[in-house]
Amino acid sequence: MPGAPDGTLGIIAGRDLLPRLIAERRRAEGRPYLVIAFAGAAEPWLREHPHEVHEFEKPGRLFAALRRAGCSHVVFAGTMERPRLRPWRADGRGLGLIGPVMGAMARGDDSLLSGLARIFEAEGFGVVGADAYLPELTSPPGVLGRHAPGPQSRADAARGASILSALGPFDVGQAVVVAAGRCLGIEAAEGTDVLLARMAALADAQATGGVLVKMAKPGQDRRFDLPAIGPRTVEAAAQAGLAGVAIEAGAVCVLDRSTTVRAADTAGLFLWSAGADALGR
Amino acid sequence: MPGAPDGTLGIIAGRDLLPRLIAERRRAEGRPYLVIAFAGAAEPWLREHPHEVHEFEKPGRLFAALRRAGCSHVVFAGTMERPRLRPWRADGRGLGLIGPVMGAMARGDDSLLSGLARIFEAEGFGVVGADAYLPELTSPPGVLGRHAPGPQSRADAARGASILSALGPFDVGQAVVVAAGRCLGIEAAEGTDVLLARMAALADAQATGGVLVKMAKPGQDRRFDLPAIGPRTVEAAAQAGLAGVAIEAGAVCVLDRSTTVRAADTAGLFLWSAGADALGR
Repeated sequence: MPGAPDGTLGIIAGRDLLPRLIAERRRAEGRPYLVIAFAGAAEPWLREHPHEVHEFEKPGRLFAALRRAGCSHVVFAGTMERPRLRPWRADGRGLGLIGPVMGAMARGDDSLLSGLARIFEAEGFGVVGADAYLPELTSPPGVLGRHAPGPQSRADAARGASILSALGPFDVGQAVVVAAGRCLGIEAAEGTDVLLARMAALADAQATGGVLVKMAKPGQDRRFDLPAIGPRTVEAAAQAGLAGVAIEAGAVCVLDRSTTVRAADTAGLFLWSAGADALGR
Repeated sequence: MPGAPDGTLGIIAGRDLLPRLIAERRRAEGRPYLVIAFAGAAEPWLREHPHEVHEFEKPGRLFAALRRAGCSHVVFAGTMERPRLRPWRADGRGLGLIGPVMGAMARGDDSLLSGLARIFEAEGFGVVGADAYLPELTSPPGVLGRHAPGPQSRADAARGASILSALGPFDVGQAVVVAAGRCLGIEAAEGTDVLLARMAALADAQATGGVLVKMAKPGQDRRFDLPAIGPRTVEAAAQAGLAGVAIEAGAVCVLDRSTTVRAADTAGLFLWSAGADALGR
């Protein structure tokens, strides 16, 4: 795990808890930071933190703001909607970047994000992963809550991992649901919450006793796309009748960990940080 | 394509158009048949055809009925819900079969269906594919409607085919949606209609211009699990903003073909029966 570098940190904020957690940690540690949110996605919690709201189309203005704040490094944190770019609003830097960004957008999430990282690096900013600032985000192998996976759940988790590995070359698939050896759902662009809602709706409760398996994509650049679960994930898994949730150890974040573990304990679900050996990787 | 054998045909009827089309064809040709529907899934069209309603738990009674009607062959046609078996209702043959059937159900669709086929064969019935009775169900390679796929759509279809091939060993995945190189959705247990509804709901119309790719699973036993599209598929693809639908030539049925093609023509979608070379198989 890379250490957090000194200097002012630019927090490029998407949705979900992660950017807020990093901002709060920086504040608690008395270390400088600036949160960058995007027009249309600026949330109330920002008011308590030094922040600026920018537009995707005006990266020139964004880079200038980061420099003005003395940022040497940035962290991409939280879910970013794929922006609908409005080229007519672009600033000078934006016009030069629209071509590469649109090309990267077409090729998939990893491609888009590594394209964005290269752009920031070319502007002289280091790009660091969120786990450098919140090292407790990911977990070593082990059972996180009160309930442990049984043999069928372990086999389902391993099968899910094989399916995700097979999809790796296509830059798709961070989560699957496997129940008693049968793959019932695969996440592509819709997100884990939508996958789980679909499992809850499956006609004859065939998902009952299944396992949600969530892993990093092979070759995924974890500096800015850490897969994550949180309390909502566990609640949705419980509603789908699943036996538990298996996450790849050291690679998938547990957001709001104490609430997440408590939710799993209460619902009777296991929450398992599975090592490479258990997942057959 | 196997020819249709002589003698009375048992049509084991699931949902969708297929069993009805086979029954109507048999009637039009003046050849004998008996439709078997299952309790809870018997539909009004059955009334116009010789039929019996049976229970999954009473295969002994079902086999006796097929023999009484002189059936030498059966065809599995239409979508079958995975039954919730009620062992306490089982007849003698049923009790003996519950173990193997439950085991096959746990291992996936192909496994369940080939398990069922083996059971019918062991009882002395031949199992024949629906395309033996309706040879026009599948299509040779070619564009079926008025609109042809452009280069991006052809590339998307090939990428979709690669993804489905990668999933083949896991007995999952008959359809995917790929848009501008990016995989947006993968069908597992939810069915193609639910996949397409999800594409229509994707926040920022990212599915626009994408392609629905539907293929047989590698190694799929096509005698009783022909993947199919129909008018509803095309309408749902149009609602998702897709550019068209690519199906594997010779392997995916087009149900109610004239209506399906007309729907595609009207909506401006291509309907492409893609050969193995075009799909990179």
